[in-house]
Order: sequence, then C-alpha cells, then structure tokens
Amino acid sequence: MVHCTVSKRVYLAGPEVFLANAREIGARKRAMCARHGLVGVFPADEEDAFDSAMPLPERGLAISRAMERAMRECDAMIVNLTPFRGPSADVGSAYEMGFMRALGRPVFAYSNDARPFLDRVTAFCGGKVRRRPTGEHEDPDGMAIEPFTLHDNLMLAGSVAASSGCLITATVRPAERYTSLAVFERCVERAAATLRR
Amino acid sequence: MVHCTVSKRVYLAGPEVFLANAREIGARKRAMCARHGLVGVFPADEEDAFDSAMPLPERGLAISRAMERAMRECDAMIVNLTPFRGPSADVGSAYEMGFMRALGRPVFAYSNDARPFLDRVTAFCGGKVRRRPTGEHEDPDGMAIEPFTLHDNLMLAGSVAASSGCLITATVRPAERYTSLAVFERCVERAAATLRR
Repeated sequence: MVHCTVSKRVYLAGPEVFLANAREIGARKRAMCARHGLVGVFPADEEDAFDSAMPLPERGLAISRAMERAMRECDAMIVNLTPFRGPSADVGSAYEMGFMRALGRPVFAYSNDARPFLDRVTAFCGGKVRRRPTGEHEDPDGMAIEPFTLHDNLMLAGSVAASSGCLITATVRPAERYTSLAVFERCVERAAATLRR
Repeated sequence: MVHCTVSKRVYLAGPEVFLANAREIGARKRAMCARHGLVGVFPADEEDAFDSAMPLPERGLAISRAMERAMRECDAMIVNLTPFRGPSADVGSAYEMGFMRALGRPVFAYSNDARPFLDRVTAFCGGKVRRRPTGEHEDPDGMAIEPFTLHDNLMLAGSVAASSGCLITATVRPAERYTSLAVFERCVERAAATLRR
C-alpha cells in the first residue's frame, strides 16, 4: 500500500506585498509554511513573470489575472488583516478573501493589530466619533461604525467564522507592523493542523 | 411561442449601507434599477430579517451568511468604489467583488471620486509620499503605491476589466460623496445594456 500525501497549497494574502523587501518577506513566509508541511504561494513572487516593458495598466491587469489563477490552484488561504491605509484590512486582500470564500476554500486570518474595530476607527477619526439617537456610533462622515464587536467589516469576519474559524490577533511593535511574522506563524500552525485532518 | 423574460438580479454593493438613511438610498437605487429592467438587491434591506435580540457578534455573522446567499442568487453586481475611510474602496465591497468574480458574475463599478489613485494616496498621507531608488512611489510606512495607473488596487481593477469592462468615475460635491446617485445611474444604464445581450 502506498501512502501518497500531496502538500496543501496556501495562498498568502496581505499588504506586505507593498514592502520594498516583499520578496524577502515572501521567502520567510514560504519557509515557515514548508516547516509545517504546506506550500505557500506568495503573490509578489508571481509578478516576475511579467514583462516590465508591458504598458503599466496592462501589466497590472495581467498580474490580477495571474493572481486569480494562482488562487484557483490553492487549497486554502492565510490572509494578513493588519490595517492598511485606514482602520481596515487592505482591499486587495479583502477581495482575495471573497474570491477564496466563493470557491469554498478555507480562509485563515491574522492581524498584527489586536485593537477592537471601534477603537481603530476612533483613532483613525482623531476621536471624532458620535452617537446616533439609536445609540450606534458613527464617524465624522456620518457613516455607521459596525457595532458587532467583530474584528473588521462583517463580511471579512464572516468568511473566517464560516470556514476555518481561525483569526489570531496580537499587537506588535509599530516598527514591525508589516514585517513581524510571529502572529503569522501561529496562524500557519493552526492552518496546517486543520488542513491535515 | 411564449417569450419569457426574467429580470436580472443585480447585487448593489457599497459603503452607503453605513449611512443613517441607508434604506432610503437603497430604495432609490432599486427604483433606478427597476426603470432599467433590473432587480436591485440592496444589502441593508436584508438586515431586517435578523432578530435584534440576537447577540451582536452572532448577528453580524448571520448578516454575512445572508449576504453571501443573496450574492449567489444574483446575476451581476454594481459596486460603489468611492473611497471609504482611506484612499481605497470599502473592504466589505471589495470582499463582495472577489466573491462575485469567483462565481463568474460580471462586476460593474463606479466611483464618486475620479482622482487618480496616486493623488488619493498622496492626499491621504498629507503629501508625504517618497520615491524609491527604483522610481516607485511609497507612502510614509514604506509601502509601495501601485504604479499601474489603475483606479484602485489591481485586483479590484482587474475584476472589472476582466468581466464587464465598466468602471465609471466622476467627482461629485463632497457633501454628496456617499449619497449622489448620478454616477450610479450611468452605471445601471451600462449594466442593463450589457445584461440584455
């Protein structure tokens, strides 16, 4: 009898693709995955395949198509929800969560910022949060701040809850907000344990 | 011979669900869709179905499940990409774009802010944008600003380009940033024309 185990492929989404040393972070993320028996697929690694002479908009769109193909070939995703240019996750990562969720692939999540959503939005607005007559909080633009005590927008929290149930958060030092992989590694351990079953 | 035409259902994503008068905006959006032969499905309308006595996190997760069911029952989406709490689109809407794209449903998009992505990020950072030695722009956190001249993150732009090809932008008066439906209506017209084919 032959036991044949194929390593699970995990799409590694997050705003760290925008770091100047994204490739190095990607290599470290892939190495952590490998130590836990997973194959990490890091978006920025795929971008090398594109001709840098291609006009910019076409190049961006070609990368998007390649990322969608890469996601379809993955068994699960680990997404970094650390807030990016605002109190919520990176929109590219949020897009990818929805994509993987619609395909029925489990979404494992982590954030290097453990503050509650209301606290993050309040800090983002410089404290200028008001109460509506209904009791709900709103920001200075009059937009409600979701009251559900979830980590981020309910669609993001819902996709994690309905698939892996794994959302790990811890606040790291500000200088390491996008580079620390301590919380990521805990998430990899959980993903590996779940995907082995 | 019987001609039987079933109206196409269009999921209406956007940050206007956070307005105090979200229901009124939803009703106006649905009426515009109806005038063009489409059935608009507005997320906030679905939330009434939930017992307000339900504990908050469970309620948020139940709404998320209902929205995912609603999306599966729609033929297309029209998404409002007007920047929300930062230079990019609302993360919930971005999640829903990815979800619909993975299901192969066309994504029609609009924004009430026509400024280029680089200009929006620069304004968000108070002008503190730097150049890397490679020439690429980065924000004060050292995170690259996508150089592709696309309207937002390449995954969002890519899903529109690969499905409907329809992204309509115009800058409206600041006070009407989340309430003006002029650009939305142009998007509905385009969606109706495409979906009739």
